[in-house]
Amino acid sequence: MQFMKRAGLVLLLALAFALGAAEKVKYVFLFIGDGMSMPQRMLAEDFLFKAGQGKLLINHFPFQAPTTTRSANSLITDSAASGTAIACGEKTDNGRIGMDSKAAQKFTSIAEIARDRGRKVGIVSSVTINHATPASFYGHRPSRGDYYEIGIDLVDSGFDYFGGGGAAKADDKKSKGYKGNLYDLAAKQGYKVVADRAGFDALAPGGGKVWARGADDALPYAIDRTGGEVTLADFTRKGIELLDNPNGFFMMVEGGKIDWMCHANDAGTVLRETFDFNDAVKVACDFAAKHPDDTLIVVTGDHETGGLTLGFVGTGYTSKVDLLANQKCSLDEFKSRVSKAKAASFDELKPLIAEWFGLHFDAAKKDDLYVKPEEEAALRAAFDRKALPMAVVRLFDNKASLGWTSSAHTALPVVTSATGKKADLFQGMIDNTDIPKKLETVL
Amino acid sequence: MQFMKRAGLVLLLALAFALGAAEKVKYVFLFIGDGMSMPQRMLAEDFLFKAGQGKLLINHFPFQAPTTTRSANSLITDSAASGTAIACGEKTDNGRIGMDSKAAQKFTSIAEIARDRGRKVGIVSSVTINHATPASFYGHRPSRGDYYEIGIDLVDSGFDYFGGGGAAKADDKKSKGYKGNLYDLAAKQGYKVVADRAGFDALAPGGGKVWARGADDALPYAIDRTGGEVTLADFTRKGIELLDNPNGFFMMVEGGKIDWMCHANDAGTVLRETFDFNDAVKVACDFAAKHPDDTLIVVTGDHETGGLTLGFVGTGYTSKVDLLANQKCSLDEFKSRVSKAKAASFDELKPLIAEWFGLHFDAAKKDDLYVKPEEEAALRAAFDRKALPMAVVRLFDNKASLGWTSSAHTALPVVTSATGKKADLFQGMIDNTDIPKKLETVL
Repeated sequence: MQFMKRAGLVLLLALAFALGAAEKVKYVFLFIGDGMSMPQRMLAEDFLFKAGQGKLLINHFPFQAPTTTRSANSLITDSAASGTAIACGEKTDNGRIGMDSKAAQKFTSIAEIARDRGRKVGIVSSVTINHATPASFYGHRPSRGDYYEIGIDLVDSGFDYFGGGGAAKADDKKSKGYKGNLYDLAAKQGYKVVADRAGFDALAPGGGKVWARGADDALPYAIDRTGGEVTLADFTRKGIELLDNPNGFFMMVEGGKIDWMCHANDAGTVLRETFDFNDAVKVACDFAAKHPDDTLIVVTGDHETGGLTLGFVGTGYTSKVDLLANQKCSLDEFKSRVSKAKAASFDELKPLIAEWFGLHFDAAKKDDLYVKPEEEAALRAAFDRKALPMAVVRLFDNKASLGWTSSAHTALPVVTSATGKKADLFQGMIDNTDIPKKLETVL
Repeated sequence: MQFMKRAGLVLLLALAFALGAAEKVKYVFLFIGDGMSMPQRMLAEDFLFKAGQGKLLINHFPFQAPTTTRSANSLITDSAASGTAIACGEKTDNGRIGMDSKAAQKFTSIAEIARDRGRKVGIVSSVTINHATPASFYGHRPSRGDYYEIGIDLVDSGFDYFGGGGAAKADDKKSKGYKGNLYDLAAKQGYKVVADRAGFDALAPGGGKVWARGADDALPYAIDRTGGEVTLADFTRKGIELLDNPNGFFMMVEGGKIDWMCHANDAGTVLRETFDFNDAVKVACDFAAKHPDDTLIVVTGDHETGGLTLGFVGTGYTSKVDLLANQKCSLDEFKSRVSKAKAASFDELKPLIAEWFGLHFDAAKKDDLYVKPEEEAALRAAFDRKALPMAVVRLFDNKASLGWTSSAHTALPVVTSATGKKADLFQGMIDNTDIPKKLETVL
């Protein structure tokens, strides 16, 4: 009898093991670096390495799965099709949000599944919250450009927490379905809508659904912050605070501005956005350290942007990514400064170039930041055609041994990294549509 | 008692499981695509996808580990330092072969460990067999340029099989240590040296050590083969035949010419070299299918070359990699054809450009291969400065939505793929020095 009991126990354990694939995880985080593939991730790690500051957290999660990203109609996906793939597990045409290629069928997102299974749900982004990537988790619209309508989907989602940038076209009276300002509509649906730092800081659990934004549009670039701004890490921390409950939660956090400055081919700003994104992931890791058996953290990208390469024809086998430390503002901010300077000649702008990028024109000091006569001539020509800021950033990136080949996305796979409970689901070469299918098994 | 016996059995099984890490594998393959990182691998897969020909075998091994490649003195490694890392598990300066940064200490390679543990050992490469990558498995020299001395190390290695390209500087009388033609020295050491197809075909097990080469220098580019050449897959198949024995074997196979045409930024040739490399891996997979419990296949790259990107500013979100099907020869072969044509004007070369790349100048047919007037002007200028072939390939690649940023290597990680027994050793983000350490545990 004693033996039979033990045999029964062994059988039960075997069954539990076999059923392991269906094991649930209480806290599930999905981080998406928009436009972040291996080049962007390794750029950040190389910069840390040169500075003697260790490794990039997300690159060293125990599981790292190369992830293909093609959409239904192109090898090069846009953020709507990739967002839909990551959120709903289905391929669609570029431009669609949570719908099929013909815009006939609405897909169900992993966030909606989490909601329907009794989890609390949070959606955070550093860009506008009705932008393609976050939209794919709650929206179902034929076009990513249907911002107002996507905002209506947000208001109707019943999700517990929205955080980050504001809504694009929040009061789009030209929309056929216009029925009021999105923030007002959200308030009517029971959302506490918060737009200032004090209000954000005061947010506490138990107060119902929340829509918090740190800026009217997107959050400022990390490199341009002046202090006091709510960061992506802050929004993540607040999300954990608000969403924690006995049934657990699902939270998606997007670092959306990595992509923006990859489009503009501005590596120094991309670098700081990647660090900022990594900091947000760190908040989840700190939480996971307290709940090691109940937390899964997945980090992915939706596509590569810009055709970034960690080498350049002019610098050969020498990497000079450490030069990026000399950049002190984003291309956008630099454009604004150049514009305000109203310079009549290129020479008037030299101090500005030196101040914000460390580049100099002193032939007596021929270091890595010296602008050679032929390079200066190219900058002068760019000034004449009113394209100086972009030319400065391009020259600066090339000096930092970095190349770019596109202002759009590329077909390079991304990498999906996972740590925590059931992280071993993310192995081998996967497709972006596999991500929500894997997540569904643990929700 | 009965229960005690069963408990003992369970304990034994648990011990066997715990000791699993030290389990040995009889047949171990290590494939290295020189210059092959994710862009090169995905280029091949995208091309197959557009042609409706499925996926690239190596991209879908069950384990895929992103792998960092920096050398001891640069974030951008050369093939000597990366070869040494993959062969010996140690970082060294660019240029060193199987020795430390100061060229004071000789490292031990995984191939030497395999030999010393009674395995048969094979080294195969599509480029010269004393080139940096294969050299790192048997050579110990301060400089990758010490071809003759590296060849002496080859002759003295005692390895069982060398196959692929010939030896560079095989009869380098300028070498201080010159003591005869490398092939003669090898024969004296008991190697059967074979340089022709018939001799290669006649090679059979039981005949002792073999040094077989399919060409005097490197093997021809796959795209330029005219028929009858011994391919990398043939050398791999022959290696299996010659090395199979009760103690098992270790075989390293390098696809070395992927790198060469990445340096030259010729995507169409890189594509065919990648397929050729994949075909060689397929030979090992066919063998593994017959010995599933005894075979481990690991595929890696030593670094990325060229800063290849799968997108280009001129083609936006549309991938046109299928255009590469129009390329019929390598840049090297095209250079030779252009040179032989002795054209007095650019126009004389238009038929050659059309024949080998499908590009045309017919304004009435404005398809993807049409050379626009401004592009034609650029080709004319390239003709004038005797750089036409390179300009043709560059234009062709850009039309195929591909970009390049360097003629050297870049710091992008590679991907290490594994299948078969103990393939699960290759997970997460690893470093190239981890590869031989992992392999050592199964040898």
